[in-house]
Amino acid sequence: MRWSGWGDPAHAVSLPPRLRALLENALGVRPPERPTVTLDEIGLPAPGFDPVGLGAIVGEGYVRTSAEDRIRHTRGKSTVDLLRIRAGAVHDAPDVVVVPGSHDEVLAILDWCTRQRIAVVPFGGGTSVVGGLAPDRTGFAGVVALDLARLDTFEIDPVSRTATLGAGLRAPVAEELLAAQGFTLGHFPQSFEYATIGGFAATRSSGQYSVRYGRFDELVVALRVATARGTVDLGRAPRSGAGPDLRQLFLGSEGTLGVITEVTVRLHRAPTRYAYTGWRFGTFPDGVAALRRLAQDGPVPAMLRLSDEYETALTGPTTDGGCLAVVAYEDGPVPAVEAVLRDAGGTPLGERPGQDWARGRFQGPYLRDALLDAGAFAETVETATF
Amino acid sequence: MRWSGWGDPAHAVSLPPRLRALLENALGVRPPERPTVTLDEIGLPAPGFDPVGLGAIVGEGYVRTSAEDRIRHTRGKSTVDLLRIRAGAVHDAPDVVVVPGSHDEVLAILDWCTRQRIAVVPFGGGTSVVGGLAPDRTGFAGVVALDLARLDTFEIDPVSRTATLGAGLRAPVAEELLAAQGFTLGHFPQSFEYATIGGFAATRSSGQYSVRYGRFDELVVALRVATARGTVDLGRAPRSGAGPDLRQLFLGSEGTLGVITEVTVRLHRAPTRYAYTGWRFGTFPDGVAALRRLAQDGPVPAMLRLSDEYETALTGPTTDGGCLAVVAYEDGPVPAVEAVLRDAGGTPLGERPGQDWARGRFQGPYLRDALLDAGAFAETVETATF
Repeated sequence: MRWSGWGDPAHAVSLPPRLRALLENALGVRPPERPTVTLDEIGLPAPGFDPVGLGAIVGEGYVRTSAEDRIRHTRGKSTVDLLRIRAGAVHDAPDVVVVPGSHDEVLAILDWCTRQRIAVVPFGGGTSVVGGLAPDRTGFAGVVALDLARLDTFEIDPVSRTATLGAGLRAPVAEELLAAQGFTLGHFPQSFEYATIGGFAATRSSGQYSVRYGRFDELVVALRVATARGTVDLGRAPRSGAGPDLRQLFLGSEGTLGVITEVTVRLHRAPTRYAYTGWRFGTFPDGVAALRRLAQDGPVPAMLRLSDEYETALTGPTTDGGCLAVVAYEDGPVPAVEAVLRDAGGTPLGERPGQDWARGRFQGPYLRDALLDAGAFAETVETATF
Repeated sequence: MRWSGWGDPAHAVSLPPRLRALLENALGVRPPERPTVTLDEIGLPAPGFDPVGLGAIVGEGYVRTSAEDRIRHTRGKSTVDLLRIRAGAVHDAPDVVVVPGSHDEVLAILDWCTRQRIAVVPFGGGTSVVGGLAPDRTGFAGVVALDLARLDTFEIDPVSRTATLGAGLRAPVAEELLAAQGFTLGHFPQSFEYATIGGFAATRSSGQYSVRYGRFDELVVALRVATARGTVDLGRAPRSGAGPDLRQLFLGSEGTLGVITEVTVRLHRAPTRYAYTGWRFGTFPDGVAALRRLAQDGPVPAMLRLSDEYETALTGPTTDGGCLAVVAYEDGPVPAVEAVLRDAGGTPLGERPGQDWARGRFQGPYLRDALLDAGAFAETVETATF
């Protein structure tokens, strides 16, 4: 992961000339006057406390204080985060990065830090875009970034179709391990390539196929949480109608209420493949009406995605105006879905537009880096309707 | 509702002679020595406080202190509750029953009671079986039963397929109003005939068709809650991945954290009818395996219900041993479901066993009254598996 941007530098993209021209000529966008700082240019203060107590818990090799380690654990990957780090602003950097190897070590770290009045920020894939990794230092003697990468356990129950996964397990690794036994989580947010299981839970993550499989929190059967007061185990049965559901406090808590160290999730049978097709609707409201029909009455395919006229014109295939919808299916196209789309005024565009989407499905953050280089600000916002 | 038992006295059932003989001869069950007390025999102390402040809020006609009103708001309908009330034990009776007409009146009542240190127990249909209506008087100057029957508003959004319902609206009334516009909640617990919308939410209710429509809490889009500190409005969007989900604290809270006064729920298109069929499986594990296949891979019908060998022999049709499964479908049988059941070793038994189940689906509590009269103790327990 690039410390000042997204992903694997080898996969960086450059802007298509058409888009570059549009930015410069139509919108007057100019490259930033100051280029991104280099790692060496960033000056970090020495850690504000002596982490020797942490070394006693996890072993000295897992307590890291190098500038690069600390910078790589500074905030997340929102556009604002990137603008700050590109400018060399690292006032949010942790004093120390600690990499525990077990739930019990996390408990011990929280205990030690609580007694020292040191803030702890759980760190999974580092892909947060909502400030979940930005610490509040007020009243604290320092900040520890708690990197959960070593909590990567994997245990599967193929009969009940559940898996108990370490919080630090990366999503692509989890999918690979599950695929070997014919299963999938079906959870593919744009951050998929770097995100972790614990991060999915702590951020109440939503993915590209959530219309079919549910948001990540809907997959969660049980959580193990380390807190400064001890362990909280939540979720004792596949379904429970008894009392308030306290899992729902930790899901979406962004690490503020405790450290999720282990997550038990429901699995889905992995399809043989996903098939993608494109559909054209005359107007955005036409497309919304069609997708609402499927969402309300079914059948619900793996994904339903509608672009407005502007996005369609900018990024889509030649659709002769109108709006592009991309539909993903498990295994292959479902005639009953196609019948609804056709009946609602959709025109099939074949596989190509869907395959184009699938190829670029994790490319958004790479494109954003290129846009920032060109001086253009881009951000993702999400909404929901019935 | 009978004060000492369940439902409409006109619908009371008597035990089939075969069952009565089984109880007496095989199990040695004898009728209780002391018959159920009459309403007149029950001695209630005078209310422990002057409810004049409550009359100022709701109007004197909606503050009730008669013995019958108080006895009818004493605890719920668990078997233990019934044994107590049949014995005339009413130490849990509220001092006063108050029937507010609006959310604001509920707020004012909570404010008044808090200042007087009086406990408030929200009361919907009075069908609780988990002690949610049994007050803890310790440290309180008295107990108010807050009967929500007048909070019966109904507002529907047919495009988004949601309805905002008053907490006191009874389930059959809600279904009737929804059916007039082609919708259903699809929520049919055994308490359906008396339960209320607010009670469904406060108890995290599970129904006979929950495998298809979800538990009631899964239908809830938004909640309005009155607390002693003011109003809490939760659920601002159809879907939200932002932060902890505080609705899940009030769902299942049994009235302890606040008074749910209004619930916005997702609706389903009402089927033209429900069709029921029976299937025979050789053993309970065979039946479990078949139902698990449908639950995990679909398609999921409206209901999947499996009786063990003992229940099948006692109450089911002649199945020549084995276990009876009852399947309910929306509109009509689904061939893909039948194919799975057949492939998993099931033998179709036609419509009769399913229709028998449907006829008796709300009869359990009536049968329990007859069993208690005969001296037999019966209770419902629920479990869940993957």
